[in-house]
Amino acid sequence: MSREADFIQSLRALATHPAARGLVDDCAVLELGSETLILTHDVMVERTHYLAGADMADVAFKLVAVNLSDLAAKGAEPVGVLLGHMLGEDDARFAEGLAEVLGAYNVPLLGGDTVSGEGARSHGITAIGRATHTPVPSRSGAQLGDTLHVTGTLGAAMLGFEALRDGTGAGHAAYSRPQPLLTEGKALAPHITAMMDVSDGLLLDAFRMAEASAASIAIDSAAVPVADTSRRIDCLTWGDDYQLLFTLPAGTESPVPATRIGTVEPRGFAPLFLDGEALLNPEGLGYTHK
Amino acid sequence: MSREADFIQSLRALATHPAARGLVDDCAVLELGSETLILTHDVMVERTHYLAGADMADVAFKLVAVNLSDLAAKGAEPVGVLLGHMLGEDDARFAEGLAEVLGAYNVPLLGGDTVSGEGARSHGITAIGRATHTPVPSRSGAQLGDTLHVTGTLGAAMLGFEALRDGTGAGHAAYSRPQPLLTEGKALAPHITAMMDVSDGLLLDAFRMAEASAASIAIDSAAVPVADTSRRIDCLTWGDDYQLLFTLPAGTESPVPATRIGTVEPRGFAPLFLDGEALLNPEGLGYTHK
Repeated sequence: MSREADFIQSLRALATHPAARGLVDDCAVLELGSETLILTHDVMVERTHYLAGADMADVAFKLVAVNLSDLAAKGAEPVGVLLGHMLGEDDARFAEGLAEVLGAYNVPLLGGDTVSGEGARSHGITAIGRATHTPVPSRSGAQLGDTLHVTGTLGAAMLGFEALRDGTGAGHAAYSRPQPLLTEGKALAPHITAMMDVSDGLLLDAFRMAEASAASIAIDSAAVPVADTSRRIDCLTWGDDYQLLFTLPAGTESPVPATRIGTVEPRGFAPLFLDGEALLNPEGLGYTHK
Repeated sequence: MSREADFIQSLRALATHPAARGLVDDCAVLELGSETLILTHDVMVERTHYLAGADMADVAFKLVAVNLSDLAAKGAEPVGVLLGHMLGEDDARFAEGLAEVLGAYNVPLLGGDTVSGEGARSHGITAIGRATHTPVPSRSGAQLGDTLHVTGTLGAAMLGFEALRDGTGAGHAAYSRPQPLLTEGKALAPHITAMMDVSDGLLLDAFRMAEASAASIAIDSAAVPVADTSRRIDCLTWGDDYQLLFTLPAGTESPVPATRIGTVEPRGFAPLFLDGEALLNPEGLGYTHK
């Protein structure tokens, strides 16, 4: 096991509170008085999560958006965010992007910390939400016979990243300024059996849903809406699209626009089947160790 | 105004929610259903907040402890923490320190994010607490005629830092493993008029309390318990001691061991008077821009 995997295992061993459900890379779901709180924390690091020289307004926008996307997948209403920010050259642009994303989703900045440091900068957001529906959606609820659905189009973020990296002048908003699907998440929460956002690649996230649900998921790749049909597998594994992936009981219609892309089957020898091919381990299915 | 000051001003302009009270560097106090939540987020950066080569178990311990100290100053009971962690060489030690501090204060790890990056590492903790007393203690409640008190001894962290830096072999726990005064904070909350933890230096933090309370605070330096009487002013300005600084109505005894070090006076021409000398601005009174 790698050193990183060892560390993450140590954290999982510490995350024994029922709110954490042993998962340190997912939202915490915390019953508190009359409310159910949803808590999530994501960090973005220069050169790991964004290109050196990136517009810091985009970085701020995306940092908040990906945290709000975690809340969306829980059907949660945002309550506010805390910011951990390493000061740098383009802070004025960072502040502009922060104001834009908080304004767009009507989310208050509640507090945080600003620090100085050398080398690659990092920025963290903690997002706090309140559940609008209980039980709170999770990735572990997929049931035998359910249908699998995804919102939107996959691969758009990949094309945006490539446009930005190559300076082609093509649009890159799908990569730089993802839109958290808060309205869709709340509409879906009462209907779904399992839900998560597609942050690390459709196949990897579906693999994780299948593992968490102790089921197998079968995906029909041709059914998945992709941004570039000539690179279908790239679109299914790239990530960063922040669409919602969810399962519904057979015969239930999605209350939001979405595409049916597969089914939940009895747990076979693999968690994931793509066009009938068994995918036994998560390597190559998406981004890991981000 | 410096670029950093500009940025912090931009954040203050965004922090308009009543929970944030326009302060991005203090706890957020959030009414939610039947509970009052206290939220805080602090970041530690390699070479800014800890020495390169530091024992990462100490770094993890201190990172959690300083966030819990913020909760202590609000009289809050910790509910849990989220961790944002940049992976590195000594992660096994980091995990050990994390387990120690969470165990010592019986605080669960609720979730977080692990990331890779180059250069100086950074680590963030978000601590979530619930208020045990309302109104929640703040730094802004000091009243004319109140007495000013501080727990413990100031300057111990400074001596610990110097021992560690110089490799003298003397104890450095006061610097490396500060003890958040959670029990004391809860005991004090119903009695105090203003309270904060001493993170950036007694004089700077008292200056901030006076400013927030629109009062003047007069401190008798000889009354302050210090770890090295030959370096009294260093002890009063160094910070990192995480003692509690609070005001009580005249005649009220402190319910926890503490020393009376001053009084709250009508707002004069300076926020702070040290042995009768007016201190007009915060420069030199403690750490800023950490």
